[in-house]
Amino acid sequence: MKDYIKKDNWQIIEDQFFPDYNEISESLFSLGNGKMGLRGNFEEDFSGKTLQGSYNAGIYYPDKTKVGWWKNGYPEYFAKVLNSCNWIGLSFNFGNEILDLNKCNIGFFKRSLNMEEGILYRQVKATTPNGVNFSIDTHRFTSMANDEIACLDYTLRLDNYKGQLNISAFLDFDIVNKDSNYDEKFWEEVAQSSTGNDSFVHARTLKTSFELGVSQSLAIYHNGSRLNANSHNTHSKYASNQYEVDINPGDEIRITKYVGFASSLYYAPEAIQEAATTIAHNAAQTGIEALLQAHKDEWKKIWDRCDIKIEGDVSAQQGIRFNIFHLMQTYTGSDSRLNIGPKGFTGEKYGGSTYWDTEAYCLPFYQSTAPANVANQLLKYRYNHLAKAIENAENLGFSDGAALYPMVTMNGEECHNEWEITFEEIHRNGAIAYAIYDNINYQDDDSYLTQGGLEVLIGIARFWAQRVNYSVDKEKYVMLGVTGPNEYENNVNNNWYTNYIARWCLKYTSQSIELVKTKYSSAYTRILELTQLKDQELTQWQDIVNNMYLPYDPERNIFLQQDGFLDKELNTVDALKPEDRPINQNWSWDRILRSVYIKQADVLQGLYFFEEDFDLDTIRSNFDFYEPRTVHESSLSPCVHSIQANLLGKKDKAYEMYLRTSRLDLDDYNNDTEDGLHITSMAGTWMSVVKGFGGMRIKNNALHFNPSLPESWQACEFHILFRGNKLSIRMEPSGTKVHLIEGDLKEVYLAGEKIML
Amino acid sequence: MKDYIKKDNWQIIEDQFFPDYNEISESLFSLGNGKMGLRGNFEEDFSGKTLQGSYNAGIYYPDKTKVGWWKNGYPEYFAKVLNSCNWIGLSFNFGNEILDLNKCNIGFFKRSLNMEEGILYRQVKATTPNGVNFSIDTHRFTSMANDEIACLDYTLRLDNYKGQLNISAFLDFDIVNKDSNYDEKFWEEVAQSSTGNDSFVHARTLKTSFELGVSQSLAIYHNGSRLNANSHNTHSKYASNQYEVDINPGDEIRITKYVGFASSLYYAPEAIQEAATTIAHNAAQTGIEALLQAHKDEWKKIWDRCDIKIEGDVSAQQGIRFNIFHLMQTYTGSDSRLNIGPKGFTGEKYGGSTYWDTEAYCLPFYQSTAPANVANQLLKYRYNHLAKAIENAENLGFSDGAALYPMVTMNGEECHNEWEITFEEIHRNGAIAYAIYDNINYQDDDSYLTQGGLEVLIGIARFWAQRVNYSVDKEKYVMLGVTGPNEYENNVNNNWYTNYIARWCLKYTSQSIELVKTKYSSAYTRILELTQLKDQELTQWQDIVNNMYLPYDPERNIFLQQDGFLDKELNTVDALKPEDRPINQNWSWDRILRSVYIKQADVLQGLYFFEEDFDLDTIRSNFDFYEPRTVHESSLSPCVHSIQANLLGKKDKAYEMYLRTSRLDLDDYNNDTEDGLHITSMAGTWMSVVKGFGGMRIKNNALHFNPSLPESWQACEFHILFRGNKLSIRMEPSGTKVHLIEGDLKEVYLAGEKIML
Repeated sequence: MKDYIKKDNWQIIEDQFFPDYNEISESLFSLGNGKMGLRGNFEEDFSGKTLQGSYNAGIYYPDKTKVGWWKNGYPEYFAKVLNSCNWIGLSFNFGNEILDLNKCNIGFFKRSLNMEEGILYRQVKATTPNGVNFSIDTHRFTSMANDEIACLDYTLRLDNYKGQLNISAFLDFDIVNKDSNYDEKFWEEVAQSSTGNDSFVHARTLKTSFELGVSQSLAIYHNGSRLNANSHNTHSKYASNQYEVDINPGDEIRITKYVGFASSLYYAPEAIQEAATTIAHNAAQTGIEALLQAHKDEWKKIWDRCDIKIEGDVSAQQGIRFNIFHLMQTYTGSDSRLNIGPKGFTGEKYGGSTYWDTEAYCLPFYQSTAPANVANQLLKYRYNHLAKAIENAENLGFSDGAALYPMVTMNGEECHNEWEITFEEIHRNGAIAYAIYDNINYQDDDSYLTQGGLEVLIGIARFWAQRVNYSVDKEKYVMLGVTGPNEYENNVNNNWYTNYIARWCLKYTSQSIELVKTKYSSAYTRILELTQLKDQELTQWQDIVNNMYLPYDPERNIFLQQDGFLDKELNTVDALKPEDRPINQNWSWDRILRSVYIKQADVLQGLYFFEEDFDLDTIRSNFDFYEPRTVHESSLSPCVHSIQANLLGKKDKAYEMYLRTSRLDLDDYNNDTEDGLHITSMAGTWMSVVKGFGGMRIKNNALHFNPSLPESWQACEFHILFRGNKLSIRMEPSGTKVHLIEGDLKEVYLAGEKIML
Repeated sequence: MKDYIKKDNWQIIEDQFFPDYNEISESLFSLGNGKMGLRGNFEEDFSGKTLQGSYNAGIYYPDKTKVGWWKNGYPEYFAKVLNSCNWIGLSFNFGNEILDLNKCNIGFFKRSLNMEEGILYRQVKATTPNGVNFSIDTHRFTSMANDEIACLDYTLRLDNYKGQLNISAFLDFDIVNKDSNYDEKFWEEVAQSSTGNDSFVHARTLKTSFELGVSQSLAIYHNGSRLNANSHNTHSKYASNQYEVDINPGDEIRITKYVGFASSLYYAPEAIQEAATTIAHNAAQTGIEALLQAHKDEWKKIWDRCDIKIEGDVSAQQGIRFNIFHLMQTYTGSDSRLNIGPKGFTGEKYGGSTYWDTEAYCLPFYQSTAPANVANQLLKYRYNHLAKAIENAENLGFSDGAALYPMVTMNGEECHNEWEITFEEIHRNGAIAYAIYDNINYQDDDSYLTQGGLEVLIGIARFWAQRVNYSVDKEKYVMLGVTGPNEYENNVNNNWYTNYIARWCLKYTSQSIELVKTKYSSAYTRILELTQLKDQELTQWQDIVNNMYLPYDPERNIFLQQDGFLDKELNTVDALKPEDRPINQNWSWDRILRSVYIKQADVLQGLYFFEEDFDLDTIRSNFDFYEPRTVHESSLSPCVHSIQANLLGKKDKAYEMYLRTSRLDLDDYNNDTEDGLHITSMAGTWMSVVKGFGGMRIKNNALHFNPSLPESWQACEFHILFRGNKLSIRMEPSGTKVHLIEGDLKEVYLAGEKIML
């Protein structure tokens, strides 16, 4: 828990330098535009704590798996997010000193992120060890208007120095990933060059052969006079333009770097150099002011459709905007090969980019805050990986088109290697089917079923049908050896959530087949041909639907998280001593497993997804049983509890749960923000507001709100997109107003009452 | 499965060279004397497939743990068996050729291990690429009479070469462990020297600072004339004596290497050089013939007390002697710091040296085949680790003197890092308690309870009392989240075997406390003071004993391996396709886990340990249920099934199970003999004969046999030691004779009938 970031409605501000927190700040001050991003590193040399990090979406490396004890079926290699070219590099040398804030006496320091406009600023006044007073004034952005452009503007003033200043403005592609398993470098040289005021570096990933070219075009002014490079330095994966300037006290150097990116995802390898160079040149020609204006205009459009205003609580206001800002920077839906990495462009921890977080948490966010094509891309991503999911299932002994999506992936292949997760946390497959349902329901458009959706559903249904087995003892279908969403249980039998969502998948797939058959007959014929679906499969699915075992305790009216759950010591979280928490840092794994304590919503996750299947009493008795036993040691947990608490009228609990993640990274709640931000859980926080306090639901094809404003807020107003309409919902203690900004939606329901717009 | 080793009653013979199998042969032809050992490597250079391996007991290295995903409680480091000084080294150089069988045309090759005398022989006739015909005649041994001495005798004849021969006789300590986690070397240089016909190397292990000095004294003759070294070569961790000889066709070189070992386990570091040198010198003075005679005399004594004769089946005869031979080479009970490593001195795979194999399988072997002090040392080993076992339990959240022995260990610390094994395969604690009971019962001497035994029992009982919890649902004590002996189930609830042995431990510990209280009152007072045992602990133990949950299916009259076992698809092994087997190489881990298939005896292991607690019908119904579902993919599995099949009169099944392990290594049944031999499972094979076909039991304090000779054997005769008596038991189709060779035992029971000796 840290408290050094200043509260502000629209800005993230660090108003003095905290060298020990620098890696945390670097995460918080990250920028991105869906295609690339970088941490809030300093442009100039810095010898203190730092994780230099620049990332380009879709470029990954299959690092060799590291395990203690190999299990059959583990992936040999898995995809890692790659740290990429450092394009902000500047180095200043004067009077035998290298400018390095770590060695300076700092008089003034302010790093601020303007979230409204997507610009990172920094102002510094400091003195070098030799006594040179200087100031830095810099800002930069990764363009939202043109996602191949990034730009920085850097002004250095030397107040009391006379003599030569050497400037090197460089591109450095000689990068090591922090979490490389075997300390290998993942990039190899293709080319580098530097002429005039331009430089270019071009590198290729080993094994995957992704290529990326980065070009810089420099405009450097000395007291307003343009400078030209005096020399150039290139070596493997590195290029710089070097300037020598005679400085008098008070002189000012202003550097504008226009940077163009061209990767082999979008260009033929042989076209990369020209493309990157042209992008940088064109950007320089356009000039920073015009680029900035286009960038700001894009951010204005984004905020117009997705802002959440919280009045009377600047801390909550800053928290929610910070979350929205980073989600929007991470994913823009412009490429179906991309997804929402757990750290976005803010760090490289964890392999892979896609978890079930995408379907369970992120999809609802993009559904409501971005044009429909953005959410659709997320579905298409999984459709594109269907063949690999079928192959993955085959590796685990399934057949005949059964598909198991990986737990963690970049390209459709599994990236994780703990057997209890990789092989057993199979409920992820259910969330991927649920997302199809959820998006069709939200958009009221079932055509996606004919565009891949049904094939994905059939693959998933086949998996479940093969994964269950019939228990002669129970005379029911059971599912043995799974890990539910609560990863503090491994290899359990009949996890209620997994059994329930599996049964739901079989039902929904059957219904969808029927729908496509009736409504889209030519697509039906094509899909039938393609999937070789047999009638007896549908009969078998129906038998499983009718006879699935769902553990239940009638005495308590609760669904049992798994078989044997009631054998545990039924303590609640109150019984834990402070030194036990978080238990995942203080208890051995076996103790966690046999304890009653729940990492994140499990039965409750099911009641959240399938709320309409249950009466409020059932939801309440489950909530009252499981909530006090949940330790929320996943950042994905509290939002579901918050939404459910709102549903049950437990306002205090709802707000308590909301606070658990709303400022998770801003306050470094888990002491791990330095590794990067928790991007996907940010979507959970958004859900707590819109689905929790706002009570937004689609019921019977209509839009419902059930507002419940936290007492400490004066007002909360959020914008959403819904089926071509743009709405604002403003909750005040006195009541809620729904305003149609765009579109022709006629009615919504407010606390169950129909209101006309 | 290989079949290149010739069948012989007393010898292991490879009568032509199989270069592809050389690493397998090196394992099979290993020698040892309880303190050191080495694989059947060639003395001279060899560029083909080989794993050069020499090992010195008790010297280990804590290699840094390698894991994919860290879990709280994993050991940071774990102890590995160390590959040590290569002391057999000889190098021959003549006419610009280095003698290397891999490059020669081999005319005759025979490698043979005389198990009766413990000597490894090799004869070779071959031609070098340059056409030099030569022969090698060599034998070596690691002395059983003096475990600090090893000796080799090597004769080289060059038939058609005239010119200079250069000989280097060296000690090489610059060794890398095959399974080093991070490719590090574990030995560092202390000293090396070479003068006259002697050399010495001295190295120290990193971190653990074990030191070992190895000295060689050479007697080299050219056609009978003694040679002196012409030069010496030393460099880090290496020393050699070099000889130049003018050779005429037909000349013969005979080299005798006397090697002395001195380690810091037995000598002060500063005394090591003198000790090793003196041992080698004294050996040389004694001469190889006398050393060999002493060595043979020791082996004669060993075989006298433990040989098993199988008549009419040379393959079985060779197999059982091979197993006994290697067990005797691996452990002699001379040092309570040592134990029975899974690979003995035949390879370095697997960290640690001690598994529950020691108590469950090896102890009975040494009980019956070696003086009582040998088995006692195995118990003492665990007593010496009690403090570490208490610490280990504390690391996992237990307290107040609860002890959990590690799954794998060298020095009392845990060496394994799979959570499902390390933290959950806790039944090992039960086997350690059972071994105390077993040995007291065998020796009819309960004094060990006062020599550490009771303290071990109390620590173990305390662990179980804390590890169970009371289930309000079942109104019984349950044990959640364990892995039973069948490691194809992980993290299960109420593994019957574990619950049963835990309950037994609590009962036996209470009885033992009572016994010590009555019989050894001063020891009782001391132990009470030391352990701070409280009356309420005994009360609580009794409550657990009375109310332990033991899963049982009355319909089938079987104990359930664990909760939910009957939910599985209840297939039998017949349902597996050949391409599925072994399932651990063909199925993903989750599929194995949820399948019914059993790796090794689990419920049956309990019925084996506690046979007297159950009637034959119960044993039969369990055997008939579990045996057909057992895949025996552990080498420890078939012996228990074989013993039980004999008990149940299932002669064919008993013999089939016996064959599964009797020649496991000799026939390379599992394709892994090249890594080293399966030393501990060899004890299981011995048990199959003595407890299985021989039906040996102690019942009501008397020795029982219940013979059942396999039909393909003409006779089987085994020797055992029992309470100071030496007996031979000869089973023939016509009947069984028990003969008292030494001692004053009055009676034994044969098939339930008392017979007088």
